[in-house]
Amino acid sequence: MAASPVIALLTDFGLEDGYPGIMKGVMLGIAPKARFIDITHLVPEQDVATGAWILHTAWRYFPTGTIFLSVVDPGVGTGRKPIALRADERYFVGPDNGLFSYVLSTVPSVTAVLLDRDEYYLPNPSHTFHGRDIFAPCAAHLAAGVTLEELGSPLDRQSLTVIAGQQPPAGDGSVVGTILHSDHFGNLITSFGPILAEEILWSPASILTIGGTTISARAATFAAGPVGEPFMFADSSGHLAIAVRGASAAAGLDVRRGDQVRISGLDLRPESTRKGK
Amino acid sequence: MAASPVIALLTDFGLEDGYPGIMKGVMLGIAPKARFIDITHLVPEQDVATGAWILHTAWRYFPTGTIFLSVVDPGVGTGRKPIALRADERYFVGPDNGLFSYVLSTVPSVTAVLLDRDEYYLPNPSHTFHGRDIFAPCAAHLAAGVTLEELGSPLDRQSLTVIAGQQPPAGDGSVVGTILHSDHFGNLITSFGPILAEEILWSPASILTIGGTTISARAATFAAGPVGEPFMFADSSGHLAIAVRGASAAAGLDVRRGDQVRISGLDLRPESTRKGK
Amino acid sequence: MAASPVIALLTDFGLEDGYPGIMKGVMLGIAPKARFIDITHLVPEQDVATGAWILHTAWRYFPTGTIFLSVVDPGVGTGRKPIALRADERYFVGPDNGLFSYVLSTVPSVTAVLLDRDEYYLPNPSHTFHGRDIFAPCAAHLAAGVTLEELGSPLDRQSLTVIAGQQPPAGDGSVVGTILHSDHFGNLITSFGPILAEEILWSPASILTIGGTTISARAATFAAGPVGEPFMFADSSGHLAIAVRGASAAAGLDVRRGDQVRISGLDLRPESTRKGK
Repeated sequence: MAASPVIALLTDFGLEDGYPGIMKGVMLGIAPKARFIDITHLVPEQDVATGAWILHTAWRYFPTGTIFLSVVDPGVGTGRKPIALRADERYFVGPDNGLFSYVLSTVPSVTAVLLDRDEYYLPNPSHTFHGRDIFAPCAAHLAAGVTLEELGSPLDRQSLTVIAGQQPPAGDGSVVGTILHSDHFGNLITSFGPILAEEILWSPASILTIGGTTISARAATFAAGPVGEPFMFADSSGHLAIAVRGASAAAGLDVRRGDQVRISGLDLRPESTRKGK
Repeated sequence: MAASPVIALLTDFGLEDGYPGIMKGVMLGIAPKARFIDITHLVPEQDVATGAWILHTAWRYFPTGTIFLSVVDPGVGTGRKPIALRADERYFVGPDNGLFSYVLSTVPSVTAVLLDRDEYYLPNPSHTFHGRDIFAPCAAHLAAGVTLEELGSPLDRQSLTVIAGQQPPAGDGSVVGTILHSDHFGNLITSFGPILAEEILWSPASILTIGGTTISARAATFAAGPVGEPFMFADSSGHLAIAVRGASAAAGLDVRRGDQVRISGLDLRPESTRKGK
Repeated sequence: MAASPVIALLTDFGLEDGYPGIMKGVMLGIAPKARFIDITHLVPEQDVATGAWILHTAWRYFPTGTIFLSVVDPGVGTGRKPIALRADERYFVGPDNGLFSYVLSTVPSVTAVLLDRDEYYLPNPSHTFHGRDIFAPCAAHLAAGVTLEELGSPLDRQSLTVIAGQQPPAGDGSVVGTILHSDHFGNLITSFGPILAEEILWSPASILTIGGTTISARAATFAAGPVGEPFMFADSSGHLAIAVRGASAAAGLDVRRGDQVRISGLDLRPESTRKGK
């Protein structure tokens, strides 16, 4: 572990009550040299799927060795398992409720443990704030040099919770997905990942339908999009996204996370229509 | 003082205008090795009582030596005293307006000084931003090795401002308190602390009344609470709290900070009804 | 460059999506010892003028050597230039769109480069997130010891974008400005800087007009202002500001950023009416 290990935090705790700061105080008591980076504390309350998505867009940009303390935990105080993972030379600590879905579905080799050694908890953990009493101390012990294997009993990777994924395209050139996220600017990020997004954007006849709206405009960049009209583009993570320049697509289209989005007219002959980019 | 002293910040400055960042810039100029942890900058504007409460829930989780720079300061520019305290091997810097009420009422030995040595201020302090011009520099000088006693003249602890406290239970098994805080999830934290909260939760006939609502349901954990109905539980600080699972108790009950809450039916024979927990 | 260089961030990315955290992750991979201070990530979306103003109020409070990573970038993906500046022993990295107007208009000697060396970018930069792919990596390379001159080709300072400034007073004792900013408390900061603000506050007959409201009340400090009535004062940056004690001046006067503000009755004989302060 590095001399100044990095702990990145992602929670739905909000910024009003001091909860993220309290977790950092606890961790400094255990790992005095730890350094903290906030990813976000504004995951919508108890919205595990959005938390998983944001973690997915963020974690590969951090150096190896980073510990991701991730707590969106509607099941706190129930039987859901507290876990830690090692994946791609980084660490993930939090509840086993799907928050690590994308890590589990994209990293070939993952080692998992159940956080069942209470000597690594705060004394007398509460029933309501495992972020402070269990997850933060375990993350800090990792930062201080305890190994993943010392933190708890091994878990079978196959036993871990993964949120249901997305469908591949059908033979008629259609594919159905969902809105994963509406960002700060009201841009809508779909569940269509980079490879499929490229296919959609480069298929001349592809059309996106969401709610009662049909969108065929597309642009190579956000700034190249038409004004005052929704258009498709690949967002910075490569996912297909929908935007309206100078306005909120989410508000304009009355769309929210989880809404279905459908593509038709997809050219299923890969590469046939591609131009240099 | 540690090689990398920790300064924890709590203010009502908000996050839009850059004020917390400016204070950190000032402190880095004085204490280049200082490390900063934000507790919150979203204390409701000028709400000293809520600031005091959040500080109370947070400070004991930080390592000894931590300096708490706390600025909720409706009286900036008036005669209220700028102070610094040493309590339980930690330091507190801010205005003497009740923000440190819980520190003063819970720590037996507190040393206090008036921040009256302007060589520890920024030059030409403004009348409107003592956080930047007085409190941040004084906190940073503490971090850089100046002693509390060097920062200013000694103050009598008894002279410091403490917000009025709460009543003990009456002989008829009733007790009156207030709502101290409504958190990010809309959970309502009452002024009944850990010891009294235990008595309330374990008295079989106890009933809580707030506004026009009477609550007798209770749960050992948040997750064990009934669905769709307000219930009592002990929050992570041990205080009696009111929640509705999957909803905001504050919104549902139309309750806000400062509202009165009343308990009746309290069993005054301590321990008589306790079960193992 | 210091052993632990400081990178201060100012963006309009918001706090929900994790974008600032992602930029920090990228930077830690390049400059492992960098330390981060958030100025704000809540600049109103794509509001370059407000971003420039907040940066102006903040940067001089940071130590020399600080690198200001500043991204409010409505033109991302278009031809606007990515730049870096050295001014007053500090560094500024971001788009050339007016965000650095106040730096350019207040610092005599500024060195500027175009960020045209893609070996300092992330590989395959996106069209939509230059904060992550271009600006953060370039800032981190500065922090890691690359010189400004190595980051790109020299730019003529005169070619850089500066937002249109303000007028000097007219011969009849009137001067017109704008509302630059409405802060967290609803205080309105005008474009009248410290010197002119002093003239206005000390001219006995000066009157401020905004919308349909005329204001002649003034106070030396915020706390000394009248209750329930708008008044003028010098805010902590020295600019003329308008406040209502215990209320939001912005809401009460129905004023927003960019609105015109007019002073009349200004005494143009400098110093003639000054008293000690």
